[in-house]
Amino acid sequence: MALIVQKYGGTSVGSVERIHRVAEQVADARRAGHDLVVVLSAMSGETDRLVRLAHEVTPSPDEREMDMLLSTGERVAIALLAMDLRGRGINARSYTGRQVGIITDSRHTKARIARVTAERIREALAEGIVPIVAGFQGINERSDVTTLGRGGSDLTAVALAAALKADRCIIYTDVDGVYTADPNIVPSARRLDKVSYEEMLELASLGAKVLQSRSVEFAARHGVPVEVKSSFKEGQGTLVTKEDADMERVAVSGVTGDRNQAKITIVGVPDRPGIAARIFGPVADANIVVDMIIQNVSQAALTDISFTVPRADLRKAVSLVQRVAKEIDAKSVAVTEAIAKVSLVGVGMRLHSGVAARMFEVLSREGVNIMMISTSEIKISCVIDEKYLELAVRALHAAFGLDRVA
Amino acid sequence: MALIVQKYGGTSVGSVERIHRVAEQVADARRAGHDLVVVLSAMSGETDRLVRLAHEVTPSPDEREMDMLLSTGERVAIALLAMDLRGRGINARSYTGRQVGIITDSRHTKARIARVTAERIREALAEGIVPIVAGFQGINERSDVTTLGRGGSDLTAVALAAALKADRCIIYTDVDGVYTADPNIVPSARRLDKVSYEEMLELASLGAKVLQSRSVEFAARHGVPVEVKSSFKEGQGTLVTKEDADMERVAVSGVTGDRNQAKITIVGVPDRPGIAARIFGPVADANIVVDMIIQNVSQAALTDISFTVPRADLRKAVSLVQRVAKEIDAKSVAVTEAIAKVSLVGVGMRLHSGVAARMFEVLSREGVNIMMISTSEIKISCVIDEKYLELAVRALHAAFGLDRVA
Repeated sequence: MALIVQKYGGTSVGSVERIHRVAEQVADARRAGHDLVVVLSAMSGETDRLVRLAHEVTPSPDEREMDMLLSTGERVAIALLAMDLRGRGINARSYTGRQVGIITDSRHTKARIARVTAERIREALAEGIVPIVAGFQGINERSDVTTLGRGGSDLTAVALAAALKADRCIIYTDVDGVYTADPNIVPSARRLDKVSYEEMLELASLGAKVLQSRSVEFAARHGVPVEVKSSFKEGQGTLVTKEDADMERVAVSGVTGDRNQAKITIVGVPDRPGIAARIFGPVADANIVVDMIIQNVSQAALTDISFTVPRADLRKAVSLVQRVAKEIDAKSVAVTEAIAKVSLVGVGMRLHSGVAARMFEVLSREGVNIMMISTSEIKISCVIDEKYLELAVRALHAAFGLDRVA
Repeated sequence: MALIVQKYGGTSVGSVERIHRVAEQVADARRAGHDLVVVLSAMSGETDRLVRLAHEVTPSPDEREMDMLLSTGERVAIALLAMDLRGRGINARSYTGRQVGIITDSRHTKARIARVTAERIREALAEGIVPIVAGFQGINERSDVTTLGRGGSDLTAVALAAALKADRCIIYTDVDGVYTADPNIVPSARRLDKVSYEEMLELASLGAKVLQSRSVEFAARHGVPVEVKSSFKEGQGTLVTKEDADMERVAVSGVTGDRNQAKITIVGVPDRPGIAARIFGPVADANIVVDMIIQNVSQAALTDISFTVPRADLRKAVSLVQRVAKEIDAKSVAVTEAIAKVSLVGVGMRLHSGVAARMFEVLSREGVNIMMISTSEIKISCVIDEKYLELAVRALHAAFGLDRVA
């Protein structure tokens, strides 16, 4: 008999029929003899409806009030599931973020969890109750409602699993796990049975939207085994867990593509100390995350500096950079929007050499020019022309032997 | 500068436009220099939507879960109004029933207020904040969400006004006050400037749906002056307050009609001690409220007993009574559904004699037969044939000089 935290996303509880299905799944897990804690998101569409209402009321709604508003969505979902389960004779009870003791800081709409008491959940479990917990929300020290930002319900589930030392945290979602590549791009992509926290973090930050980085970091820090599973399909999902020998056997676990970047180049930058700080200081101050930076070899005391920023921040970044470029007497600022980043991820890279060389060779063979390169211990990324992204992902997927065995 | 508790019902906050109107009204009261506490109901339609969802999920939803579900409606309303006000530069803050310390017993869906701490409201007022409070909800000693039942938001407002010793509690609703009679029946009915708590209680329990009895009782016990006002129309409303000489000047303050009754007669009841208890014990046990009881003069050791019950409970009451009638050897049970109750209410009755006699005379003159009579210190009610109800109300309204002075 294990203690399992299950988390269901908005689409999984998006209608009365789907709530019934979740109730059946919970009933099955109970019959299998497990102790259960269930964490829910708001019914899909509900959060959007509330956000729309808020913006109809006032153009820039106060964030504390936004949290008061949005936290109602999860409460509706937990009450409905709890009454469904009770109607089936299962002793379920709904609990808000406050009631299970999710204590956060006061950064409304994007609060960080400070601690989790989980007292009432422990009591409930001891009494044989199935606690149904509102995800995404907590309270601050003043007892005001806070919300945890995007992917907040995953975080609630992982944090509760950590506090309760649960045997597993299962995230039910609309995909059935983590794949070697986006199946929309690579039809032969395989579901991974296991990935390490580190790989999952790289995959998450690279745009594989299965689990938010914060949840993965939290799980890694507390050693919570997280399984990502489909709520609509039977069968195994992907287990996110500690690195092990299995994972190290292969060099590359997955290939990802990311279109969400744009490149800015400052041409003819005087090559003297302190220039980088002059450029990137204002960009960082504006909360723009710079991903890759490349500086060419200096010629005649002039150099070119290229870097990538999220496309959404491009306009803001360019206007900042143009001001700095003038101040430091650079020649010009060039922008390339049509770029993409293709990356290989795998903890096995630590042991297998030659992954980078092989990656460059594959891209070159396909006629794909590499504009920028960055590497970490378990990842290699190349910035390429956007139009080659699918081609590059497919070629690398095949070259590193990730294709499904037919 | 006064401290005023304002309460707005569901229709007053039923749309974004109406929320704007409430915000303007709050802004006006602030400009007039008043300290304000605002209590809201859920946006009209929202509670119905949630109840419907619950019943789609399961036929008889658990009551604790129902409270978790329904309490979200008021939270949405307070968050929206608070962000609206903040958008206008007014320092407003939303608070849940828990946050303002509405502590109740654990009778979910119909909890009673045990105490009101109002600590955070006092703090907020001291800081110049306008607290926007979720009506209808509280928490029990276990910190579970409870709701106060029908008219619960009025009760929240009155209870807060009592706890804060507010100068006035204004209930904004869709009528502009308490009338001498239902204006749909008596077009010449006048709005009363003032009524006593006792009169209001009689009027409320007689079916004038302006304020729930519980709120009036609470206000009377704590001496809270309550004003009922239209949220859509400028001008004065009706003040519900302690009895005073003004009110006593007239014998009758209002005439009400109530169709929500049915009459049961047990014919041929053996007239011996203990019979009444045998009959009304089981009815009371079934939570059916018996309003009037009449027992005929006994003839040949047999009597007839008639009484009225709410129409909604008629079927249940009849089946109980039929069983008892058999046990006590009564002859038969007769039911009359098409009855109505017409009542005169007024604290002045204590001083003015002859009100009852005049009432009977007016009804007799109109050819209305009186089936049952009951009186209290400030009320006389007659049960009559339902079809004469409007006629009776109009005739009494005119006879007691309640018509609007043209």
